[in-house]
Amino acid sequence: MSDLFITGIGHLTTNVGDPDADAVVVVDDGIITYAGSMADAPDQEGRKRLDVSGNAVIPGFVDAHTHLVFAGDRSDEFARRLAGESYSDIAASGGGILSTVEATRSASEETLFDLAAQRVWTMIRGGTTTVEIKSGYGLDLETELRLLRVARRIGDELPVTIRTTFLGAHSVPREYRSDRDGYVELVINEMLPATADLADFCDVFVEDGVFSVDEARAIFEAAKALGLPARVHVEQLSHLGGAALAAEIGALSADHLDHVTPDDAAALAGAGVTCVLVPGAAYTLGTPQPSGRMLWDAGCTVVLATDCNPGTSYIETMGLVISLGVVQMGLTVEEAIWAATRGGALSLGLEDRGQIKEGSPADLVILDAPSPAHIPYRPASDLLSETIKDGQIL
Amino acid sequence: MSDLFITGIGHLTTNVGDPDADAVVVVDDGIITYAGSMADAPDQEGRKRLDVSGNAVIPGFVDAHTHLVFAGDRSDEFARRLAGESYSDIAASGGGILSTVEATRSASEETLFDLAAQRVWTMIRGGTTTVEIKSGYGLDLETELRLLRVARRIGDELPVTIRTTFLGAHSVPREYRSDRDGYVELVINEMLPATADLADFCDVFVEDGVFSVDEARAIFEAAKALGLPARVHVEQLSHLGGAALAAEIGALSADHLDHVTPDDAAALAGAGVTCVLVPGAAYTLGTPQPSGRMLWDAGCTVVLATDCNPGTSYIETMGLVISLGVVQMGLTVEEAIWAATRGGALSLGLEDRGQIKEGSPADLVILDAPSPAHIPYRPASDLLSETIKDGQIL
Repeated sequence: MSDLFITGIGHLTTNVGDPDADAVVVVDDGIITYAGSMADAPDQEGRKRLDVSGNAVIPGFVDAHTHLVFAGDRSDEFARRLAGESYSDIAASGGGILSTVEATRSASEETLFDLAAQRVWTMIRGGTTTVEIKSGYGLDLETELRLLRVARRIGDELPVTIRTTFLGAHSVPREYRSDRDGYVELVINEMLPATADLADFCDVFVEDGVFSVDEARAIFEAAKALGLPARVHVEQLSHLGGAALAAEIGALSADHLDHVTPDDAAALAGAGVTCVLVPGAAYTLGTPQPSGRMLWDAGCTVVLATDCNPGTSYIETMGLVISLGVVQMGLTVEEAIWAATRGGALSLGLEDRGQIKEGSPADLVILDAPSPAHIPYRPASDLLSETIKDGQIL
Repeated sequence: MSDLFITGIGHLTTNVGDPDADAVVVVDDGIITYAGSMADAPDQEGRKRLDVSGNAVIPGFVDAHTHLVFAGDRSDEFARRLAGESYSDIAASGGGILSTVEATRSASEETLFDLAAQRVWTMIRGGTTTVEIKSGYGLDLETELRLLRVARRIGDELPVTIRTTFLGAHSVPREYRSDRDGYVELVINEMLPATADLADFCDVFVEDGVFSVDEARAIFEAAKALGLPARVHVEQLSHLGGAALAAEIGALSADHLDHVTPDDAAALAGAGVTCVLVPGAAYTLGTPQPSGRMLWDAGCTVVLATDCNPGTSYIETMGLVISLGVVQMGLTVEEAIWAATRGGALSLGLEDRGQIKEGSPADLVILDAPSPAHIPYRPASDLLSETIKDGQIL
């Protein structure tokens, strides 16, 4: 049953201008066919009536930045870091991204799928209807392909829309420590062509000691030739010029941005690069958040995402992320909800998602609360009543 | 069935020295009769076997500071405050504590019970087995009595241990705005004697513009004569000397402590006053957290609690609180778990709770994770598998 007549809505966030108080949403064959006042609504007949008893209805969350296909457990590393041990000491003793790479390389495709599917089900139950998934815990061709296949299979088998990103340039693997150039060449000449059919985007971690701006530019040129738009990890731990690169190459998104400057913000806004903020990372690391307020006011398209990953943001659901966007990044409640829905959709090039509008897929969330303000107001509460994907109540 | 033989434990936190890896916990008639190595365990026969499949077992959470009996919704106020409006402007337009007082006074006892019970069920499902509940949204005798009756009834009807605190001195009600002394006299001469049978403790909000140190001292003297130990809201929004008062009068707890000094910490440790930190409040208000590290290192008994209330910390469960204790207050994972269990029990004078030890009530949590480090490591995840109260699997 994907024909719905949703009524009793206490608050409707459409992201295309809110209709009046007495709103209904109508869904036919999984597509929204009406969102507006009851007075002008089509007839209810033949559609399943869903009375949401005064609760709020908002678009399904679009989580535009995750690394959720992985094996291994880094909770010990988290405890050690917070007890004062440095990331470099932890990495030297086998921790960090490369510890996840090791666990992931040795996990079977079936195991990786089961682990990832469990995480995505948690996301779905938390109101997320579209998820971007990056590779990057393989760092060799075989494992990167495995990660992308698992990500695509999630989209095939679970009620969620998946977009995939090739992030071979996530870290330099151990076996290339003394041959960085060799690894960048491998990414460009072998991995990119071989993974391009499984990936919608290409990403590079531009950071001091990881990949330079010039290396990233070369990788993105090759990706562009294969038809893969760029997403870029930039300015997370230092200011290296990645945001300027994202503007220069017209990337689809610049992500993290902890050290972003007003000049960067102007360049990103001017180039139409979406700004994906992942407050779970700075929260987990105990470092300052970037200013969502500054980016928003500079005219950037601000996006909120979980960054779900086993090292620095093991967060599957959007509630805490929205809360952090509000209390630590200076966004208003309305902006944060927009950033977690419409912002995410624009960041993934999904123009018809993240909104409740005639013609869009019926990806909706019914809250167990009368307004979306309750999400940041009650940051530890599960306020999700129902997730609706393509008109199906999950 | 309250006779249990719990096995397959991946990690056991007892708070009385952890036994070896292959641990079991045995429960008879709701009381822990054994916690230690499998080798020395009593026979399993006649007890229900509960294999927790490698998950962690810890004591039930003891939430030592809540204001969870209330009516009304202050999500709008939250949004306005974060959009830059000052608390005093909000209070002037009818917001703040007094808006909850208005909604609570006009709610029936049955409505207040239903609302509170819903919140406490959320707490129980989140692993909390003991809760302190304050009055303070009545500010007149009739309503304060109603709140304390509701709190006691929660303890009678739900599987949770409740301790109640009379907080008539939470704010000066509107009708006494021009007669502060009159309200303090009402608290001392009428409310305290009338509520003493329903309350285990007495609390005062010591703050600039709320109640002074001298007013609090007078209230606590009267409470002491009635047999009610003191808990005190101190140094939250400013440094007024409430912590020193708590040490002077030998209060059971000093709560909030956002502006606590090293001198205060030494005094609190010396006087054996437990320090109840409520990180949800500073998180919600976007203000700096007090240093749990400093208090712990000064020798204080550090406690973590939710402060569940509709204004500044609408948080029912302990996961995010423990996470904030670790990432924003400088506690280690082990310290934060202790503070949320044994610390809370000591703060409420419940010497036999917050520990997994022969002779203690079987209040336990089975995590859906192999170690308690996962709680702060995965701050948005529901990692609770089972809550066990007095040996009953809930």
